[in-house]
Amino acid sequence: METLSLVDVILGEGHTIDPNVVLGYKTGRKIEITPLTIGPHAKLRSGTVIYASVEIGAHFETGHNVTIREENRIGNDCAIWNNSTIDYGCVVGDRVKIHNNVYVAQYTTIEDDVFLAPGVMIANDPHPLCTKCMQGPTIMSGAKIGINSVVLAHVVVGRNSLVGAGSVVTKDVPEGVLVVGSPAKVVCKLDELTCPFGIVQPYVNGIDVKRRPEWDTVAPLVRPITRPKGK
Amino acid sequence: METLSLVDVILGEGHTIDPNVVLGYKTGRKIEITPLTIGPHAKLRSGTVIYASVEIGAHFETGHNVTIREENRIGNDCAIWNNSTIDYGCVVGDRVKIHNNVYVAQYTTIEDDVFLAPGVMIANDPHPLCTKCMQGPTIMSGAKIGINSVVLAHVVVGRNSLVGAGSVVTKDVPEGVLVVGSPAKVVCKLDELTCPFGIVQPYVNGIDVKRRPEWDTVAPLVRPITRPKGK
Amino acid sequence: METLSLVDVILGEGHTIDPNVVLGYKTGRKIEITPLTIGPHAKLRSGTVIYASVEIGAHFETGHNVTIREENRIGNDCAIWNNSTIDYGCVVGDRVKIHNNVYVAQYTTIEDDVFLAPGVMIANDPHPLCTKCMQGPTIMSGAKIGINSVVLAHVVVGRNSLVGAGSVVTKDVPEGVLVVGSPAKVVCKLDELTCPFGIVQPYVNGIDVKRRPEWDTVAPLVRPITRPKGK
Repeated sequence: METLSLVDVILGEGHTIDPNVVLGYKTGRKIEITPLTIGPHAKLRSGTVIYASVEIGAHFETGHNVTIREENRIGNDCAIWNNSTIDYGCVVGDRVKIHNNVYVAQYTTIEDDVFLAPGVMIANDPHPLCTKCMQGPTIMSGAKIGINSVVLAHVVVGRNSLVGAGSVVTKDVPEGVLVVGSPAKVVCKLDELTCPFGIVQPYVNGIDVKRRPEWDTVAPLVRPITRPKGK
Repeated sequence: METLSLVDVILGEGHTIDPNVVLGYKTGRKIEITPLTIGPHAKLRSGTVIYASVEIGAHFETGHNVTIREENRIGNDCAIWNNSTIDYGCVVGDRVKIHNNVYVAQYTTIEDDVFLAPGVMIANDPHPLCTKCMQGPTIMSGAKIGINSVVLAHVVVGRNSLVGAGSVVTKDVPEGVLVVGSPAKVVCKLDELTCPFGIVQPYVNGIDVKRRPEWDTVAPLVRPITRPKGK
Repeated sequence: METLSLVDVILGEGHTIDPNVVLGYKTGRKIEITPLTIGPHAKLRSGTVIYASVEIGAHFETGHNVTIREENRIGNDCAIWNNSTIDYGCVVGDRVKIHNNVYVAQYTTIEDDVFLAPGVMIANDPHPLCTKCMQGPTIMSGAKIGINSVVLAHVVVGRNSLVGAGSVVTKDVPEGVLVVGSPAKVVCKLDELTCPFGIVQPYVNGIDVKRRPEWDTVAPLVRPITRPKGK
């Protein structure tokens, strides 16, 4: 461990930390280094590296090979999955779920209840390689960014909106809509979406099923699921 | 190793396992845990994590930092490369090759001889965040999913078909065709494709060169390769 | 370490190497194995694996979980970030920066001062699965490939050009232009691009700000940055 200069780590009670987790890793950037603090009940899986100068809330969970850079503030009940990186200087709210193979660029703002699907890429440079006006987007509360989508620098994605799979979001997205494509365009209000199996209403006032009472009352379909004709 | 609760692992003969490989990792999901079984001649590279409650066949090979979650069944002669994850509850056939930085969502079916190129993202939620009708696609035998493409939930990709680079597959793909785009559309029959260098017929009855006699008789071009004019 | 057959490693002075870095990893391919040589002042972060039969210049830096396969030649002052892989047989120039979650396919040529943004995927097979005419693209000096873009086999990306986010580059790109889309098409000369905040000229003769005198004279905007109306 002779080459690894780790700083103080303040860890809440009740944590589970796998072997091969590095906490308090020191950035090469010339900043004032403060401790890494993580709230109670963290579950950190093998290969996770969390830098010093980071504050994280309670019930934080990582998958394998997650990297969280310095100067990040992350709220309570967040989860970040395999092979994802939060670059430095971001603010992440509560109950945010960031899936596999995601990259979040420096100075991105992610509000409460946001979901980033696998492979999402968040950018922050309007014209690479210049960092003079570099800033990540703002993903507002409850927004969901679909699998393998890109959100460009300085963009604001509105509350409870959904970005469809494989999209490139180049300008602001209003509240409560579905956008799709490259560049992403509004398709409909989110509440107009239907479930292909008709078992739930996917969004009510933009709120997904997991945050509504149906979550506890509607039974999941039995797998393997067969699609209805014509869907 | 005090925080890592590993279960029994049944490993076939003739394996090569790097340091920093974790076998029999226990999921946080509340399921009945069974052993991890891996057939003979496995080659598992550093950073690989394979959960308990997984069955894998013979001659299994991983790259670095591969994660295979619980309740997966994987056949013989499969390879999964760097930084890829197979999420839980999938069925993978024989001779499947999954390249770098791929994510395979829960409850996906991948048949024999399938190829997932680098960066492929497989989805399973028709309307996130709801898992009531969640199920991954079915990629039928011999299908090839091109680099950085997405395949959406419940879709069936037909036998021996090819999804072009950077596509988003939103509905079923017939057998033996090339589809491209977002949403992906049929371009031609696969057998109509030609090699830009004219040295092989890329697909015959949808079967690629590696599975045909030409594989042993046609010499590879000498690199660096110069393209013919106009290609 | 009993299953890991490492070969000789020749390391320059002044290096910093984290724990859990593997140097001189032996490929399974049947090639003549030569030492791994890395120039002075390398900084290699945890989870990095560099194979034998690789030559790397001075001031080389990796993020976490980077894999560099065999038969690669990499110049001076290069950096490769988290969860990225350089597959075998590539040539990489000086001052190349490869960001997170990137895959560079076998036999790719990357010239000096190239930037690959996060999630970039470089392909090398015109018709998978055949390797008879397999060769990666040539990314010429100063070219910048945008976030989550794909560059296909045998393509030449011209000097100082920029590929916009989420593009698929299917044919050659001229010098000094912006291309966007799938397939990527020329939008304008790079020098015509403006900064949304008007604080710099993004490209002069195709050269970005970081390689021009403005880099030292223009102050960065103070964050959080507010966009001008209508941008």
